[in-house]
Amino acid sequence: MIHVVATGTFDILHPGHLYYLEESRKLGDELSVIVARDANVKHKPRPILPEDQRLQMVQALKPVDHAFLGDLHDMFRPIAEIGPDIITLGFNQHFDEENLRQRLRSRGLNADVARIAGYPGPLASSSKIVEHILKTRGPTPPVGEKE
Amino acid sequence: MIHVVATGTFDILHPGHLYYLEESRKLGDELSVIVARDANVKHKPRPILPEDQRLQMVQALKPVDHAFLGDLHDMFRPIAEIGPDIITLGFNQHFDEENLRQRLRSRGLNADVARIAGYPGPLASSSKIVEHILKTRGPTPPVGEKE
Repeated sequence: MIHVVATGTFDILHPGHLYYLEESRKLGDELSVIVARDANVKHKPRPILPEDQRLQMVQALKPVDHAFLGDLHDMFRPIAEIGPDIITLGFNQHFDEENLRQRLRSRGLNADVARIAGYPGPLASSSKIVEHILKTRGPTPPVGEKE
Repeated sequence: MIHVVATGTFDILHPGHLYYLEESRKLGDELSVIVARDANVKHKPRPILPEDQRLQMVQALKPVDHAFLGDLHDMFRPIAEIGPDIITLGFNQHFDEENLRQRLRSRGLNADVARIAGYPGPLASSSKIVEHILKTRGPTPPVGEKE
């Protein structure tokens, strides 16, 4: 049985997330998802939705067998506990595959790393959804822009 | 077999939606969901996400067996096609149960109507999520308000 692990923030679920999880699930027989802790999201604005809510929504998606919150201090700890055969990266996750493979090896983890392509649809990113909300619902649209 | 129908806009999925669908599913053996058409959402701001994207995300949730877009002109047409035993209303859907029951009867539909209670968690409404985004990510927070 091939166990796949996917990871991410999963703020405001959209078809891009779903596509990433469906494609990850297709690589094996069981999909576990590690959801980023609020405190660990530092490379982009803090998530809109709190971590327990993001976890709950990921857990409710059909391709997902199990979902867990990440570790606050050691990103490899939950991976070691799950012991996956494959770890998938989303198209916008800034890890170098080979570097991640080596870091996994140095922790005694033999998982392979696979990159999932981006979903081509519109509004398939939480930041694009936030931009769209600010543009269409904000109190002061930029000068020259019509609703 | 008891067939349940739930309806809604399902813009920016959150635990409030999930709770409504899970509770609806518990009333029967099969859950079909009718997702509101963009053009028919008139009692609140237009949805952030387009109808096909909202449909796709609802369809991906574990409690949902089938999901369809609503009819542009006749809200009872898809209900007549599905022929449910129970139609559920969310806590914030502005239909009077008895009035809806009577309108169903007048169309020859014998479905019962059940009201699902609201989910008590935070940010469990698309409009609250939008407000939160405008407040925390908008360019000009209201005077006197701190981030």
